[in-house]
Amino acid sequence: MANPTLLILAGDGIGPEVMGQVTRIIDWFGDKRGLAFDVEHDLVGGAAYDKHGTPLHDDTMARAMEVDAVLLGAVGGPKYDDLDFSVKPERGLLRLRKEMDLFSNLRPAQCFDALADFSSLKKHLIAGLDIMIVRELTSGVYFGEPRGIFEEGNERVGINTQRYTESEIGRVARSAFELARRRGNKVCSMEKANVMESGILWREVVQKVHDEDYPDVELSHMYADNGAMQLVRAPKQFDVILTDNLFGDILSDCAAMLTGSLGMLPSASLGAPNADGRPKALYEPVHGSAPDITGQGKANPIACILSFAMALRYSFDQGDEATRLEKAIEKVLADGARTADLMGEEGGTPISTSQMGDVILAAL
Amino acid sequence: MANPTLLILAGDGIGPEVMGQVTRIIDWFGDKRGLAFDVEHDLVGGAAYDKHGTPLHDDTMARAMEVDAVLLGAVGGPKYDDLDFSVKPERGLLRLRKEMDLFSNLRPAQCFDALADFSSLKKHLIAGLDIMIVRELTSGVYFGEPRGIFEEGNERVGINTQRYTESEIGRVARSAFELARRRGNKVCSMEKANVMESGILWREVVQKVHDEDYPDVELSHMYADNGAMQLVRAPKQFDVILTDNLFGDILSDCAAMLTGSLGMLPSASLGAPNADGRPKALYEPVHGSAPDITGQGKANPIACILSFAMALRYSFDQGDEATRLEKAIEKVLADGARTADLMGEEGGTPISTSQMGDVILAAL
Ligand SMILES: CC(C)[C@H](C(=O)O)[C@@H](O)C(=O)O
Ligand SMILES: CC(C)[C@H](C(=O)O)[C@@H](O)C(=O)O
Repeated sequence: MANPTLLILAGDGIGPEVMGQVTRIIDWFGDKRGLAFDVEHDLVGGAAYDKHGTPLHDDTMARAMEVDAVLLGAVGGPKYDDLDFSVKPERGLLRLRKEMDLFSNLRPAQCFDALADFSSLKKHLIAGLDIMIVRELTSGVYFGEPRGIFEEGNERVGINTQRYTESEIGRVARSAFELARRRGNKVCSMEKANVMESGILWREVVQKVHDEDYPDVELSHMYADNGAMQLVRAPKQFDVILTDNLFGDILSDCAAMLTGSLGMLPSASLGAPNADGRPKALYEPVHGSAPDITGQGKANPIACILSFAMALRYSFDQGDEATRLEKAIEKVLADGARTADLMGEEGGTPISTSQMGDVILAAL
Repeated sequence: MANPTLLILAGDGIGPEVMGQVTRIIDWFGDKRGLAFDVEHDLVGGAAYDKHGTPLHDDTMARAMEVDAVLLGAVGGPKYDDLDFSVKPERGLLRLRKEMDLFSNLRPAQCFDALADFSSLKKHLIAGLDIMIVRELTSGVYFGEPRGIFEEGNERVGINTQRYTESEIGRVARSAFELARRRGNKVCSMEKANVMESGILWREVVQKVHDEDYPDVELSHMYADNGAMQLVRAPKQFDVILTDNLFGDILSDCAAMLTGSLGMLPSASLGAPNADGRPKALYEPVHGSAPDITGQGKANPIACILSFAMALRYSFDQGDEATRLEKAIEKVLADGARTADLMGEEGGTPISTSQMGDVILAAL
């Protein structure tokens, strides 16, 4: 049988540095666990723009549609800040999400025991935190038409359209309920049904999918502003949070920061299952391209490595191997391995990106 | 000279209870400081719906346009959850904001020394916090057309429109820069210019207003998702935060919760100045109608009283009297006065809504 295929798009800033460690881990799984992948590399974001004048070349897009999973590093950087909207690095990522139809974005906000002190929250509020945010990723105000900057009378107006169909809401709701069943069996859905009609439809469809097919899952609804408050007040009240593209962007970053260690958080973006049962999938760390530390060997590769662990679990049905990798990371953290971003007030000497790769490989 | 006029709309839930204490404070300023107001009372939200079948009667709307300032308690409650969108309690509030053209919503997130332990954040991150969020309040996705739930093919689609003109952005930006000059002289503007064209126009206009008329104010721009993170990570980095209606709703609630005591936070919603230099204005606490504690004498009236302090400052040019009231509140807190929402882990016996009014009056 042919090996499963991976397309690696390391992207910009620290993307290539952290991805360098991921490829070492991938090789280890091939050598030691008989899990060999066929790996290809290509460009995305500013790196693609520099070479092709577009943040995602059509050939890359075509390969992304064919492979079993895409691993992405990070996109963007100050060098590209003044580029036209249509060729900004982010457009490459958004095109991947849209054309691969990756409607369900899984963002775990998890607090590692060894790192609970890094949170800005008091320890008892955050220790043991384990939330999964399911963000709709291919519709809503990121993609709705009409959009643009138009002349109107004697001034300009900036327009974007928030837009959700019943089927778009239904499919992402299903993915949240499915996930909840494998976790704490609770879903909290967030919108602004008190002021937005798109929120009313969202709430109605989520409730209907629940009542028809997931009555065993505990479902609640919350306004998104209250959601932001509750995340800060008592984050452990949540299991799975289901929300739309824009609210999800903000709430998942808020939740991520609660853990205090952004360099630790992976994400998975999943589409519909193919004939072989595998969803179209893209995995990427939650952190950005971090231009301030690029090229210095300081970046923390763990978020990107944990994204590969999510790939093992969600694309390749290798939950046990994913757990093996996650446990290795927990161990090195418990043993005190720290990249620069994980230096607390006690101080100490940080290890480099590749040294973190070394100790994780050793722990495996 | 005629007394200045106040329209009190106590609204739903705990609204009437907390407003009861505010009227005592208003009377005190009339008796003791020669600051008499002509006060009228009327209905809004569910209370108005129960009587008139609409969450804001036209006569009330007309009076709101005429008085010097409106004080609002809270709107909404489970009783009204299933009402049609067009007559929900929130529509009364939104109509006031829109017709009075209250484009600039000031939401201070302030941490009172005596209450720093209530925050879920570590004390050193939050003690002394003093942020002012300026939220655009009359446009954006709350009001843009088209909006609604429509049939499309064989399913429904929920649509809302995010929409900002240059002049809408410009005027709220000005109010943020003006405020910053009287505070820490720093504005951070938040949008999603990386994915939304309305955000691109927002950033451009804010920068232009700055460069032309407020070059002395320090201006920065931040993506709203990063803004949510930074609020959780290190809130004291901010002075004035300027943002749109929807982002402002979420970010201001997030910031409010950082302080840990929602029952303490007031807000002001200001329009353009009238002929007499007074802006159209509505003042309301940030907390909601709190149906769970309604009618029990447990509600904390301080947020509503501090909203009246904002009225003294922004509508009646009585900054010194506002400070007098704020200092009285600081004093009773330092002396240990606590309503039920302010009970910490140490325990103790909470005082009632009217007892809190008593001690504040005594401190005045
Ligand atoms: C880079 C940007 C387009 C993206 C988004 O807004 O979705 C990012 O913030 C994210 O959350 O993945
Ligand atoms: C009650 C509701 C309409 C309102 C809003 O969303 O603006 C509230 O959340 C607020 O922030 O004042």
